[in-house]
Amino acid sequence: MTDVVSRRRCRVGLAGFGTVGRSASRLLQEASREVELVGILNRQAAARRVDWIDPSVTWTESIDELLALDLDVFVELIGGRQPAEQWIRSAIDRGVSVVTANKQIIAHEGPSLLAAAAARGCQLRFEASVAGGVPVIRAIESGLASDSLTQVAGILNGTCNYILTRMEREGATFDAALKEAQALGFAEANPAQDIDGPDAAAKLAILAMVAFGIQAPPAAIESRSIANVTPLDFLYAHKLQCTVRQIARASVNGTPGSLTAAVGPALVPLTSPLARVSGSENLVTVTGRSGGETSFGGRGAGGDPTAVAVVSDVLSIARGARPPSTGPYRQVSAVSSAFAAPYYVRLTVADRPGIIAALAAVFAAHDINIDAILQEPGFEAERRPFIVSLDTAPPEVVAAALAELATLDFHLVPPLALPILTGAHGNM
Amino acid sequence: MTDVVSRRRCRVGLAGFGTVGRSASRLLQEASREVELVGILNRQAAARRVDWIDPSVTWTESIDELLALDLDVFVELIGGRQPAEQWIRSAIDRGVSVVTANKQIIAHEGPSLLAAAAARGCQLRFEASVAGGVPVIRAIESGLASDSLTQVAGILNGTCNYILTRMEREGATFDAALKEAQALGFAEANPAQDIDGPDAAAKLAILAMVAFGIQAPPAAIESRSIANVTPLDFLYAHKLQCTVRQIARASVNGTPGSLTAAVGPALVPLTSPLARVSGSENLVTVTGRSGGETSFGGRGAGGDPTAVAVVSDVLSIARGARPPSTGPYRQVSAVSSAFAAPYYVRLTVADRPGIIAALAAVFAAHDINIDAILQEPGFEAERRPFIVSLDTAPPEVVAAALAELATLDFHLVPPLALPILTGAHGNM
Repeated sequence: MTDVVSRRRCRVGLAGFGTVGRSASRLLQEASREVELVGILNRQAAARRVDWIDPSVTWTESIDELLALDLDVFVELIGGRQPAEQWIRSAIDRGVSVVTANKQIIAHEGPSLLAAAAARGCQLRFEASVAGGVPVIRAIESGLASDSLTQVAGILNGTCNYILTRMEREGATFDAALKEAQALGFAEANPAQDIDGPDAAAKLAILAMVAFGIQAPPAAIESRSIANVTPLDFLYAHKLQCTVRQIARASVNGTPGSLTAAVGPALVPLTSPLARVSGSENLVTVTGRSGGETSFGGRGAGGDPTAVAVVSDVLSIARGARPPSTGPYRQVSAVSSAFAAPYYVRLTVADRPGIIAALAAVFAAHDINIDAILQEPGFEAERRPFIVSLDTAPPEVVAAALAELATLDFHLVPPLALPILTGAHGNM
Repeated sequence: MTDVVSRRRCRVGLAGFGTVGRSASRLLQEASREVELVGILNRQAAARRVDWIDPSVTWTESIDELLALDLDVFVELIGGRQPAEQWIRSAIDRGVSVVTANKQIIAHEGPSLLAAAAARGCQLRFEASVAGGVPVIRAIESGLASDSLTQVAGILNGTCNYILTRMEREGATFDAALKEAQALGFAEANPAQDIDGPDAAAKLAILAMVAFGIQAPPAAIESRSIANVTPLDFLYAHKLQCTVRQIARASVNGTPGSLTAAVGPALVPLTSPLARVSGSENLVTVTGRSGGETSFGGRGAGGDPTAVAVVSDVLSIARGARPPSTGPYRQVSAVSSAFAAPYYVRLTVADRPGIIAALAAVFAAHDINIDAILQEPGFEAERRPFIVSLDTAPPEVVAAALAELATLDFHLVPPLALPILTGAHGNM
């Protein structure tokens, strides 16, 4: 493949002429010194045809026709599991390198597809599958290649970050901020993939694969929804010098095959770079034994930034860069979500004497220190929210105490427990 | 070169067994599956020898002896212009790839050395020459390869950032903070390279070369010292919701061969990621037409982070990655420093009636709007500092007004004028 490139421009076929596909097509045409866009696949290809695409480009609705164009690189931008995965396998089977932005396929089938590509002497690249235009995959595989990485963490879902920053700045409710995100096209009609965490979990699984050489099923990563976060949580978080963000984090402790990973809302110190990530931006921090913490931030979505990642992958292949070493990936079946952390617990109660004593007794019984109890004035006794912050304790102890707390009879709303990120940069 | 690697491990010789050299040697030995450290050059090599280096490694004081070890990669870590440059040329002449952390050599001779390496079919890599362990060179060359970049900016000198953050947090004077940095080993006995800007200017020249394909002499980049910044400037900056940082920035406007670049203290909004960079950390932001702003942060100095960059470059070569396309680089002889920006001007005067009227007249005569005049109470009239903030005006107009202002007779200290960074991320 790579030797071919020195004789001719890299021939690229692209499937999926949506927002990212159009931006990628434009960038591919701008890179015409090195690459040649030869085919575009889309449903109703005839209707999609646009005049700014070179007339020599073949428009088709058939993957076989696209792959028959003597491609060097197949760019998959149709999304979803099938037929995208089948098309990627077809390309690899023919020895055609693949560039994809498809996080679901890489999170679930990345190692098997990488092995297939290596066996056929072609490449599979997927920079755009995590954090859009931010080149964090390449940084981990290449720029930090000599380090021993211990943690990846960050804000990987721009929709959640948009919603939470609107709640923080405007005091909007979760429902109102979600509706606004949907109206602006940031959130899907069915936003569960974003707000409940599976989208970030798939991206986290990819980062864990690249950083730690581990394959973890995305579904095994515990995900908690941001839907239970309220404007009041920002008020209390600010009193603790924190804000609330959806955080994805994964770490290894040196035990082969062990992975700790979780996605969900967390308190982040206001001094942390994570607290500064606003709107739909992404930020990934990578921690290594030698290099310490390195951070990568930018636009995590959108046609143009994602297309930059896609076409930069194509250019790497066109320029003959070899793929980084791929695997073997160690399969982990059980993923722990047990990060030790201090905790923020918000309770909403019908107030009466003895509530603080009852909850203090629960935490004392589990040997957990209470760091602070904060109760803002101005709420009716019949529905009074307050928060308790807990010192760091073993995660299983915190879980047991919270389970016991939930059984008490004074809750009007189930308690909301959020970890508080600590450490030099507000990471865990 | 690259074909050799598949037959044998990549043979590496290293010159300079100082802090970075020791860390790099350790990482090279840890990567022994792919690379083989075969030789170390250092003055008084016999005395430097340590028992954790494999006994098979040749210790030498002679570059000819080192290069005679049938190297695939020569790692240059001795620093300075000569003999380092001569050694790098000797290696390239033999077709041996080179990895260096030497910013002076790359800033001054990068394009000529890259051309020599390309002609000999070997590589020259220099990730560690800018921002230590932060893989920003690779990100620009590879991860953002398909974008059209318009600006690079950031905090590139950890010593200055350490000094300024100490002044901000402890109210230390510049001299006290500098002495502290020297005592901790962050600053040289002669700190002019850091505080006056040449160090950051050399790194900025390298970033401009990689991002814009431009070769600019580092000495042509206007550098202003941070030595005139006082604790009082942080007080006034905070009143403007800003802090003070040494900022290096370079941009192109589309005119071939034109470059605007400068290094010096600037006001940075507290909401900017640049304001959050503390101690000796670095942060680089890269702006592209398609990808928007992407940021890269982490440890900009220190043996271990710098060694991660060096050894990751070695691994890229060992894994057969081809170098990115190199040049031709467009030579720019004149570098403009004229960024349009609002300005902060601090004046120190023996107070008397009419001073505000006089300076207001100067700015009015140049058609520059005054945004604010701030004068903190508590200073004696004989030596009263205050600040004027100016709206954005053409840079040459601001320069003329400031030159005229400096001629007025009431200054006890020359006025200090700092640009105020604006825009979404506090960049220009």
